Amino acid sequence: FLSKPTRKEEWTVLPQSAHSKNTVNPVRRIADACAVPPNPEKKVIRLHLGDPSVGGKLPPSEVAVQAMHESVSTHMYDGYGPAVGALAARQAIVDRYSSSDNVFTADDVVLASGCSHALQMAIEAVANAGDNILVPHPGFPLYSTLCRPHNIVDKPYKIDMTGEDVKIDLSYMATIIDENTRAIIVNNPGNPTGGVFTKEHLKEILEFANKYKLIIIADEIYGDLVYNGATFYPMASLSPKVPIITCDGIAKRWMVPGWRLGWLIIHNHFGVLNEVKQGIVALSQKIVGPCSLVQGALPKILRETPEEYFVYTRNVIETNANIVGNILADVPGMRVVKPKGAMYMMVNISRSAYGNDVNFCQNLIQEESVFCLPGQAFSAPGYFRVVLTSSTDDMEEAATRIRDFCFRNINQFSDSEDSSDEGLDLSAMESD
Amino acid sequence: FLSKPTRKEEWTVLPQSAHSKNTVNPVRRIADACAVPPNPEKKVIRLHLGDPSVGGKLPPSEVAVQAMHESVSTHMYDGYGPAVGALAARQAIVDRYSSSDNVFTADDVVLASGCSHALQMAIEAVANAGDNILVPHPGFPLYSTLCRPHNIVDKPYKIDMTGEDVKIDLSYMATIIDENTRAIIVNNPGNPTGGVFTKEHLKEILEFANKYKLIIIADEIYGDLVYNGATFYPMASLSPKVPIITCDGIAKRWMVPGWRLGWLIIHNHFGVLNEVKQGIVALSQKIVGPCSLVQGALPKILRETPEEYFVYTRNVIETNANIVGNILADVPGMRVVKPKGAMYMMVNISRSAYGNDVNFCQNLIQEESVFCLPGQAFSAPGYFRVVLTSSTDDMEEAATRIRDFCFRNINQFSDSEDSSDEGLDLSAMESD
Ligand SMILES: Cc1ncc(COP(=O)(O)O)c(C=O)c1O
Ligand SMILES: Cc1ncc(COP(=O)(O)O)c(C=O)c1O
Repeated sequence: FLSKPTRKEEWTVLPQSAHSKNTVNPVRRIADACAVPPNPEKKVIRLHLGDPSVGGKLPPSEVAVQAMHESVSTHMYDGYGPAVGALAARQAIVDRYSSSDNVFTADDVVLASGCSHALQMAIEAVANAGDNILVPHPGFPLYSTLCRPHNIVDKPYKIDMTGEDVKIDLSYMATIIDENTRAIIVNNPGNPTGGVFTKEHLKEILEFANKYKLIIIADEIYGDLVYNGATFYPMASLSPKVPIITCDGIAKRWMVPGWRLGWLIIHNHFGVLNEVKQGIVALSQKIVGPCSLVQGALPKILRETPEEYFVYTRNVIETNANIVGNILADVPGMRVVKPKGAMYMMVNISRSAYGNDVNFCQNLIQEESVFCLPGQAFSAPGYFRVVLTSSTDDMEEAATRIRDFCFRNINQFSDSEDSSDEGLDLSAMESD
Repeated sequence: FLSKPTRKEEWTVLPQSAHSKNTVNPVRRIADACAVPPNPEKKVIRLHLGDPSVGGKLPPSEVAVQAMHESVSTHMYDGYGPAVGALAARQAIVDRYSSSDNVFTADDVVLASGCSHALQMAIEAVANAGDNILVPHPGFPLYSTLCRPHNIVDKPYKIDMTGEDVKIDLSYMATIIDENTRAIIVNNPGNPTGGVFTKEHLKEILEFANKYKLIIIADEIYGDLVYNGATFYPMASLSPKVPIITCDGIAKRWMVPGWRLGWLIIHNHFGVLNEVKQGIVALSQKIVGPCSLVQGALPKILRETPEEYFVYTRNVIETNANIVGNILADVPGMRVVKPKGAMYMMVNISRSAYGNDVNFCQNLIQEESVFCLPGQAFSAPGYFRVVLTSSTDDMEEAATRIRDFCFRNINQFSDSEDSSDEGLDLSAMESD
């Protein structure tokens, strides 16, 4: 039933769509809560953004810069390319990442406007309203941001950060799967955990996925960025059975998040993803591919960035992790989760000693001008996250200030409930 | 009701989501139909893609190239910027396009990954499933591609191409508005029509929108690219009353569609778009802005591209339009719609003389190696579209071949129903 159109006298405020209204980034709310003034007497040290370009310590390699200049100069990349991305760029991904254990061709690769967009296409192609996707807690909040506008339920599973290596709690995961579960998002190396799953654990996850016949969306944006003895295994290289959509990009290992180039690799075992792949290809047409200049540069970036570049970046992060870890090691009521990958360190704080993580981070800014994000931004209440990409001097200075802050403030907080070590805020599960 | 999770024995092909399944670009189906082999004895001339970089005749200005090199070299744009886009880039848009008739600030501008993405965000923020948006027929098919995955109904309105200036059939439009209508998409200058709305007609459209209190999504990607005596008026400059979301970008006047930079300007009269604006800002977080390097280059591109560059590009297109128009002028059963803007010419073909437009284009490829898109790709059956951005020699050669083809083939087609001049395929309205 539709009424006839009529002339209207007044303009009224239009409601936004449910889709945009449900597009909520939980980090924003918490970042807003942390918008407090730093101490004007202390130099600001920013350890809250997962952006390696911020500190100036991790610039892109000369090869990447050169590749961009060449791409601009050739004029071969001014026009539209295929929506799935230029063949040469997709082939470069094949050349770098495929192997006898990890077989795929350029036809299985779709470029995206960053790994974020890759994740968006994967999620949008596999699930309908009412379906659910399993997402890690603690974890990167964008997964939820991307699910909710479509009324896809983001069901949290637990990551255990208490052991030597972080792990998925698979027995818990088994209890939350239902017939509407469409995929498991596995992020390895992990943001914010800094954890790297061992080969054995990855095999357990794959076996689990195979048992329930659930596909995996593998967010491997920090792949290879491992240290402190860890090894990175692409999930797809460990299973010829489980269909996997790998989401990746150049943001975090080539240190150019602003360039916005990512990709999906569709490991379509048994043809399980035949239709989903068509869906991803269709979705790529909406914005007609990432910036063609960066696509043009990608083959050179992937082929010619020298191994020393990666050795250097891993070393910077490892050194920073260990400096911060040592300085914070014997602070009472504090426990550092030793990172082995990505560019983050999680630090657990006892609630009775320091109050909740949001207040802790607010006070740290106000007293010490050190910016960190509270764990709540990543569904890890009781923790704060330290980004490890600044200069060694800044990291050392920041850690020392955190340490001093703790010794000065311990047990000064009215809030005395004890924090949980689990990092899973079950109360927040279904809310934003 | 959900059943308990169970171990499953077999992998089965997963269905893709309804969302991706409904993401259909109608051009693809028609482009596929035109995937016929050209005549091996004639040089291929491609006049089917709205990509000015293809012919080599319309490269970007030196300023744009220089701006990109500088942006890469400064290393100021390697990191994440704000999801809505860098302030300097948004301010450059204000500086170029705002005026006393067209008041807006950087806060009203959101950057996007091309005008396509700007349109996507506008559509997704204003309409829910079951709502409808009015889209032009003939028109750019992406509007429908973007609506349908959300079950937003794309209701076609008619563009009349029979007069000296193309016009919207507003009395027809009045009949299709209902209480679920959320916006009118107005594309000026028009793809595929090559039409430019006169100032008077734009005022009629705005009055119409004001009468029904419908906001306008103004796709002005070809703004300023006008010739043959036409003048372009941004819709927002003609009305202080109607809330308008202008979608634009650098693809078509700066001739760099691959660079993927577009923007929305939210003209929020009476605060009508307060909520929608929040929605667009939220949506921009999904992919965290367009390539930051191009954002870094934008201020220089917008400020320093010399006026001669635009004079030159308009001149190329005008000259090509007039050459093709003259050559085809007296072909029987053919009527050229004289273009005044954008980079396209529509040519009407009598069905009794030449059969339907898809067959016509197929035959033209096979006999003459000239590629054009059939009008059906743009909901304009009975027409074909000529892209006017190649070299003058190629345009002349192509037009001559089309002319020869017509004289050779006239009345050779079995199909003898007469075509309609309206360019509106009502039968195809609700299908893909
Ligand atoms: C786990 C994870 N996945 C994906 C992304 C997004 O990467 P991109 O910048 O390529 O969109 C991030 C960024 O912080 C991340 O931490
Ligand atoms: C009318 C119209 N709007 C929008 C676009 C898309 O522009 P962009 O390449 O900036 O996404 C096009 C491209 O052909 C177009 O013709």
